[in-house]
Amino acid sequence: MANQIYSLMARNTRNKGVNPSLAAERQNKSFNVERLTNLLDGGEELTQRRRQVESMIYSDPVFSQRNNYFMSQNQRYEAAVRKSVHCKKLMKQMGWREEGPEKSYMYRALGGDTAFNIHAVFRRALHSLGADEQISKWGPLTENFQIIVTYAQTEMGHGTYLQGLETTATYDASTQEFVLNTPSLSATKWWPGDLGRTATHALVLAQLYCSGTCHGMHGFLVPIRSLQDHSPLPGITVGDIGPKMNFEQTDNGFLKLDHVRIPRENMLSRFSQVLPDGTYVKKGTPQSNYLTMIVVRVQLLSSEFVPPLMKACIIATRYAVVRHQSKIKPSEPEVKILDYQTQQQKLFPQLAMAYAFHFVNNSVVEFFNDAYQGIISGDTASLPELHALSSGMKAFISDCCILGAETCRRACGGHGYSLLSGLPSLVTKLSASCTYEGENTVLYLQTARYLVKSYLQIQSSQDSESHKVLPQSIQYFASTRTDRCPAQKAVDFLNPALYTEAYAHVAARLIRNSADKLYDLTSSGTDQYVAWNQTSVLHVQAAKAHCHYFIVKTFAASLRKLENEPEIHQVMKRLCDLYALHGLLSDLGNFLHDGYMSGAQADLATAAYLDLLPLIR
Amino acid sequence: MANQIYSLMARNTRNKGVNPSLAAERQNKSFNVERLTNLLDGGEELTQRRRQVESMIYSDPVFSQRNNYFMSQNQRYEAAVRKSVHCKKLMKQMGWREEGPEKSYMYRALGGDTAFNIHAVFRRALHSLGADEQISKWGPLTENFQIIVTYAQTEMGHGTYLQGLETTATYDASTQEFVLNTPSLSATKWWPGDLGRTATHALVLAQLYCSGTCHGMHGFLVPIRSLQDHSPLPGITVGDIGPKMNFEQTDNGFLKLDHVRIPRENMLSRFSQVLPDGTYVKKGTPQSNYLTMIVVRVQLLSSEFVPPLMKACIIATRYAVVRHQSKIKPSEPEVKILDYQTQQQKLFPQLAMAYAFHFVNNSVVEFFNDAYQGIISGDTASLPELHALSSGMKAFISDCCILGAETCRRACGGHGYSLLSGLPSLVTKLSASCTYEGENTVLYLQTARYLVKSYLQIQSSQDSESHKVLPQSIQYFASTRTDRCPAQKAVDFLNPALYTEAYAHVAARLIRNSADKLYDLTSSGTDQYVAWNQTSVLHVQAAKAHCHYFIVKTFAASLRKLENEPEIHQVMKRLCDLYALHGLLSDLGNFLHDGYMSGAQADLATAAYLDLLPLIR
Ligand SMILES: Cc1cc2nc3c(=O)[nH]c(=O)nc-3n(C[C@H](O)[C@H](O)[C@H](O)COP(=O)(O)OP(=O)(O)OC[C@H]3O[C@@H](n4cnc5c(N)ncnc54)[C@H](O)[C@@H]3O)c2cc1C
Ligand SMILES: Cc1cc2nc3c(=O)[nH]c(=O)nc-3n(C[C@H](O)[C@H](O)[C@H](O)COP(=O)(O)OP(=O)(O)OC[C@H]3O[C@@H](n4cnc5c(N)ncnc54)[C@H](O)[C@@H]3O)c2cc1C
Repeated sequence: MANQIYSLMARNTRNKGVNPSLAAERQNKSFNVERLTNLLDGGEELTQRRRQVESMIYSDPVFSQRNNYFMSQNQRYEAAVRKSVHCKKLMKQMGWREEGPEKSYMYRALGGDTAFNIHAVFRRALHSLGADEQISKWGPLTENFQIIVTYAQTEMGHGTYLQGLETTATYDASTQEFVLNTPSLSATKWWPGDLGRTATHALVLAQLYCSGTCHGMHGFLVPIRSLQDHSPLPGITVGDIGPKMNFEQTDNGFLKLDHVRIPRENMLSRFSQVLPDGTYVKKGTPQSNYLTMIVVRVQLLSSEFVPPLMKACIIATRYAVVRHQSKIKPSEPEVKILDYQTQQQKLFPQLAMAYAFHFVNNSVVEFFNDAYQGIISGDTASLPELHALSSGMKAFISDCCILGAETCRRACGGHGYSLLSGLPSLVTKLSASCTYEGENTVLYLQTARYLVKSYLQIQSSQDSESHKVLPQSIQYFASTRTDRCPAQKAVDFLNPALYTEAYAHVAARLIRNSADKLYDLTSSGTDQYVAWNQTSVLHVQAAKAHCHYFIVKTFAASLRKLENEPEIHQVMKRLCDLYALHGLLSDLGNFLHDGYMSGAQADLATAAYLDLLPLIR
Repeated sequence: MANQIYSLMARNTRNKGVNPSLAAERQNKSFNVERLTNLLDGGEELTQRRRQVESMIYSDPVFSQRNNYFMSQNQRYEAAVRKSVHCKKLMKQMGWREEGPEKSYMYRALGGDTAFNIHAVFRRALHSLGADEQISKWGPLTENFQIIVTYAQTEMGHGTYLQGLETTATYDASTQEFVLNTPSLSATKWWPGDLGRTATHALVLAQLYCSGTCHGMHGFLVPIRSLQDHSPLPGITVGDIGPKMNFEQTDNGFLKLDHVRIPRENMLSRFSQVLPDGTYVKKGTPQSNYLTMIVVRVQLLSSEFVPPLMKACIIATRYAVVRHQSKIKPSEPEVKILDYQTQQQKLFPQLAMAYAFHFVNNSVVEFFNDAYQGIISGDTASLPELHALSSGMKAFISDCCILGAETCRRACGGHGYSLLSGLPSLVTKLSASCTYEGENTVLYLQTARYLVKSYLQIQSSQDSESHKVLPQSIQYFASTRTDRCPAQKAVDFLNPALYTEAYAHVAARLIRNSADKLYDLTSSGTDQYVAWNQTSVLHVQAAKAHCHYFIVKTFAASLRKLENEPEIHQVMKRLCDLYALHGLLSDLGNFLHDGYMSGAQADLATAAYLDLLPLIR
């Protein structure tokens, strides 16, 4: 079928070059595109390296994606393995380092259509949770695929509630081994990527039992397939969990362990250890074992969430200048669909959002890098803020990326429903992101818990000195602010300080409101846990408002760094304004609720917003 | 792979019967479920007939869906053909009529996983646009699959803008034939279902040329494949358009026509005709040829949009009482996830919406049945309202069903991403509904055009007599209303009259606002078409508010018919309240904008809404 379609097209489009409508748009630009590209890449040199990698990928037949959508699941899997092995060879040959940028350029150019992705998650887990000897023992083996390891945390019965994991790791001092066991059907590991067919080992997250005492979830490296013939080892039942909404190339799998024995040294032991006699020694906080998830969450923003949104924006925007459909004036020819205000309203906010997330990602990564080194060497002071911020950003950004990519898909009409447009698979892939690495609702609630706690602390300490040392992302709790939006004309809304303040106002009010409601319930005798549940819809709303504020603030702050690039600053400023006003108008109720903004001001904001569309066009 | 997974499950779940958590919930109900079922089905007798059909479908191995998700596209297609042929045999055997309810019960039980669905659209087109002789000639042939006909309207270059279709049908008086031709690549028919492999004929929508004059789009029945060996006929290039986001079982296809000749009698000629000498005779209005689309749009609500939403609600709600995850109180066991307020907030509004749409569908079908007979016999007075209402409802309901089903999918965590949950395919199938049979934005704009026009007419006629004869769906334009919401306590919001009025207020204000903005622009010299485009975002918003109002009003009105069923009335009333309040709070800005509601009232509405959740639980 593939050939039939490609040949129909080829007969008609061969040698036609760039579509003239597209070429015309490209002529007509207000800024230096190359300069912006460099800025986004982080410098001219990085742009060059990226392009070098991309040209190698696009010209190499092993990496061809041409028949992707016509392949069976099995073919997709095999192609992904082939590509990943080929990537590895290329890296060796070119001397690119594991931590260098080339690896992520390759990943991005291949649209994530690779194997061993959870193997990479294991490598991160090893570096966060492994003791130094373990890192030096297993690190090199994993780097060269001598062993391939999956991260096996979720069970059929438990994903969110890790304390409920049923898999057990019982220490047997007589042999100095752990006995790993799956006591029930619901304890079957379910979902881990690379598990169904690929992995030789699994990092099994299990409840640790020493001399009858449970010490909670720990990570154990368990060999699951023979290094000789890849057959499952004794006591191991393993296989693929079947078809999914996307990720055909990934062998998400299941795993049952029947009293499988592993040496004592196979427990990851940076933060806790079991001595030969079975004594349990704790070195970190109870949260330490969750560190991998924070690392992964931060890393997801730039690897899994934002690039598909960007791709969707590019496909849909290009299509919108190539597609001519219907007329604006009956006497004139059909117009490019991007000339419709409704089409601009679909696409431009997504574009603005993609830029917003680009800048926010930079800022979160910076914050993470500062905090991580401290945490890993035992200073956990910044862990709560890092956890709250990374949870909130993971949830908010993935939610928005799904919606944004789907909006782009729909904006392409029928062609957006064909897999060949590339859009459906961007959407169905993103659709998983609200679930994996922390279900989004659960993450918002974690962020909210931090916000409410911080709010109550500030309430109880009237001391303004202690306010000054508030963690950065919540400093706005304590700043005094006006209770009326000062805008008087539409252009007043094109002011980052003005709208950032409006977002801060809303977020602070919603957090206060949800904390007060919680307090009211507990003071009137409701059990605190029940009260938390009964206010949880409000908490989620408050956490979202907090995230939204953080993003607007960060985008606005990033603008300031562009001030010596006036042309680029101008476009970015428009996108920042658009992002902020679109969000404000989509959530208008919260801005009007306490009279912070009036209806008349909302109309000014609408006018400012609609006026931005043709400017960006 | 299928066997591996099924056997893992079977070993553990065989003979366990109904899940005890589910059984407990079923004990604990406030109304007679059978009675409600009968009401929804339209009577006890229909419930029985439905169950009879369903039990035949579920027990017959030909209809088995067991391996659906493990099949290739080709296998899906072949299974669908097999099922559809088997359905036909069953209908014959049982003496079920084509128009009887059994056919749609079968379709629904099979989840639309059948072939010849566009063939059915053609049959509707034939009955709307065909002359009586044509109906009696082709009707029986299509009924028995002696010919299989696709509806080939969309071209690669044109879906929305039908005036831009490029396929031509040129009348040749010398042979009394039409010559059908595809003049360019972009004129290739693209998307029609059943075209890729199945159809023997196509109803080709093409520009009719008689003696050099173009008379616009008309329908032509064109044989495309041999009735002997199914090979493409001379001049025909035909094939499958390739993989899509869903509908693997459907062979959406492409079609190029190279000067293909068909007899004069093959133009559908209820509303226009070409005489042997080439004289064009028009009998209907220019809109007549769009009638099929109205018929199909109305029919889609109950066949394609609402049932998948209902299924998604059922799957997700059942899962939410079976799934135990995390604790509300640390000292107690893990809870059913349906006990989380956030989970209720995800699922109950979707459930309420499914009921709302059930009732709205009944009301739209009733309106359609009244109007259709008139239209088809030449009385087109109700056509504009029918067009506006069916366009708006198609767009609004499909948008909401997509979002609703996706919300249900996400609410199932990881399992909702597995195809085996059934949820991803409900979502990806619904995802097409915003595009086919009229792209939703374009449809909202059509509804808006009708609303603005009606509004301006009312403005210009100050005569209150003429207001009385306003079409039913827009009578609220003319009624006088208060400019403040009277609610003083949370329970005041549990009043259908109160919230219906609030929705009417918002819709009327937004329509007025968009019409005024349009007027301002044209009065200040902007070309009317440009002005329309520059206000189109506001028009879409107004059209949505109108649709939302219509649905709330209809749900509330349907409640009144249940007053002699107090228990059922009580649950339905709660769902109606929930539907209305959820919509109000999601779009709060519009209710607060002009002070119709205050922030304090919004808080009361929130409280009323949150209090409903456990009641529905
Ligand atoms: C594509 C994909 C890849 C994956 N890869 C891996 C992998 O490599 N390794 C691995 O170990 N796992 C993997 N997973 C599993 C994933 O981590 C889990 O699915 C995820 O953690 C969510 O858990 P769950 O499925 O148990 O959802 P649940 O927790 O059952 O969520 C269901 C519903 O319950 C609600 N809920 C649950 N708890 C609470 C609460 N306390 N308060 C309020 N609401 C609550 C949720 O909001 C949600 O609506 C993958 C999943 C997917 C989809
Ligand atoms: C699953 C599926 C099945 C189908 N089956 C059939 C079939 O059996 N037979 C058949 O003939 N066709 C079929 N179609 C095609 C379908 O009818 C068209 O895709 C649909 O009419 C939309 O047209 P388009 O694709 O040209 O979108 P476009 O019109 O190109 O829309 C693209 C974008 O432009 C915007 N736009 C276009 N015009 C305007 C305007 N005037 N004002 C503002 N914005 C505008 C839209 O809002 C949208 O955002 C099918 C499509 C799908 C997805």
